[in-house]
Amino acid sequence: MLRKVGFLGPSGTYSEEIALSLYSESEARLEPFSAIDAAIRAVAAGEVDESIVPVENSLEGSVNITLDTLAHDVDLYITKEVVLPVRHSLLTKKDGNENIAVIVSHPQALAQCRKTLGKLYPQAKLQPVESTAEAARIVAAGDGRYASVGSAKAAEIYGLKVLAGDIQDNIANSTRFISLERQAARQVQGKCKTSLVCQINGLRPGSLYNILQEFAAREVNLTRIESRPARTGLGLYIFFLDIEGSTAESNIAAAVKAIEEKCLWYKNLGSYPIYHTGK
Amino acid sequence: MLRKVGFLGPSGTYSEEIALSLYSESEARLEPFSAIDAAIRAVAAGEVDESIVPVENSLEGSVNITLDTLAHDVDLYITKEVVLPVRHSLLTKKDGNENIAVIVSHPQALAQCRKTLGKLYPQAKLQPVESTAEAARIVAAGDGRYASVGSAKAAEIYGLKVLAGDIQDNIANSTRFISLERQAARQVQGKCKTSLVCQINGLRPGSLYNILQEFAAREVNLTRIESRPARTGLGLYIFFLDIEGSTAESNIAAAVKAIEEKCLWYKNLGSYPIYHTGK
Repeated sequence: MLRKVGFLGPSGTYSEEIALSLYSESEARLEPFSAIDAAIRAVAAGEVDESIVPVENSLEGSVNITLDTLAHDVDLYITKEVVLPVRHSLLTKKDGNENIAVIVSHPQALAQCRKTLGKLYPQAKLQPVESTAEAARIVAAGDGRYASVGSAKAAEIYGLKVLAGDIQDNIANSTRFISLERQAARQVQGKCKTSLVCQINGLRPGSLYNILQEFAAREVNLTRIESRPARTGLGLYIFFLDIEGSTAESNIAAAVKAIEEKCLWYKNLGSYPIYHTGK
Repeated sequence: MLRKVGFLGPSGTYSEEIALSLYSESEARLEPFSAIDAAIRAVAAGEVDESIVPVENSLEGSVNITLDTLAHDVDLYITKEVVLPVRHSLLTKKDGNENIAVIVSHPQALAQCRKTLGKLYPQAKLQPVESTAEAARIVAAGDGRYASVGSAKAAEIYGLKVLAGDIQDNIANSTRFISLERQAARQVQGKCKTSLVCQINGLRPGSLYNILQEFAAREVNLTRIESRPARTGLGLYIFFLDIEGSTAESNIAAAVKAIEEKCLWYKNLGSYPIYHTGK
């Protein structure tokens, strides 16, 4: 039976690009979802075996809906991370002119090109939509005054023209995508990471310091710390921690165990390999 | 001369509600801005004396454009923090029915009501716009199939009806707003906070731990730590740190000085009082 792999759709998104780089047609059937949380919940519900969603961009930061759904709504594991260099293009209808009134795209894609677009099209209104591919579809269906920010691949799929390439504000622009499954990855080797979510007693001075001490004392490198609201009151947070290496390493396993004991609440999202793709 | 106070407009936003609670008509002239970064830049450019913008919500977390603009684009001080309990209503045209196809609002307001709206109007499409007041304006101008999420005050201003009150997913929902000025607040007393932004050498294990050590050693309470992309590459971050108390206290002043010396890059956003408002 073919493996079912969900992704943030529709066809033409960067999430689909990642799915296509991981699986051939004979290995998996790809299923688009119209929202990130729907793609994640479909794994928990057993509708798909795996889903691929964006989790962080180098300019815009975390994709909050991904973090919040993982923390609060499902019990899943991260089984892969794929890093994709982002190259945005400005897409218009083939017979469109440069008289652009509205530029549509996913809010993060718009934010990643905000300065460039402000310079090139100061009069255009930026309008956020669900995904970069949905944006391309809107341009294809609309009159010539619409443009979208998305991949050159989306231009192909929706029969659009690339009016300008590489319109992102910063060339160091990459996005991290993660695969989510119901079981943790096994025998993780090579370049890898371990992710935890935890809530500490933030009302006591030094609580976060006490947590980080467990890593520092064992020379474990924390590559990322991200706070998100605990949703129980202003000023209460949960922390997403990314650690270099896997829990197969004894110092990391020991640090993770110590953290678990010190936290009010704790979730191990698993150890997983890191892949790089694209140009 | 009247003090000029900018806010995220148009009329009817929660930012305006804060401005009105701080200043009477004889004290200040309020100026709406259509985007958060525009309101902030107007202070830096001297067009207004102060701007009031949202910085964090207890469910949705940081308002990234506020943090990023403060870190990268201007040199301003936080001079007040105001905490407002958020109560969202669902607004429709007076002659509208409950047959709602599209619900518009600011992305954070939509996110704060996502579960409730999904239950009440599973078929409705959620469409993000610039502000809660802009959303009310769209409903007033549209046909009866539109609804918006916003304040009861916005219903008054735009002649709408409150179809449902208190539609936020969680009753512990408050938003923090900050005032920004070109000069730091003076003689801060009572309940107050100090905010810093800094970049550390994240490639060395324990660098964040070494920073937090400066606070822990002096029993200084860190109330919030928020990482944002440094924008120079994936995996490089700047940190926003909120500290309980002001730099008029010697242990806090000493901790802040130590942090400044340890960081690659550092900005002191000032010490400022905290106010609570609304019911």
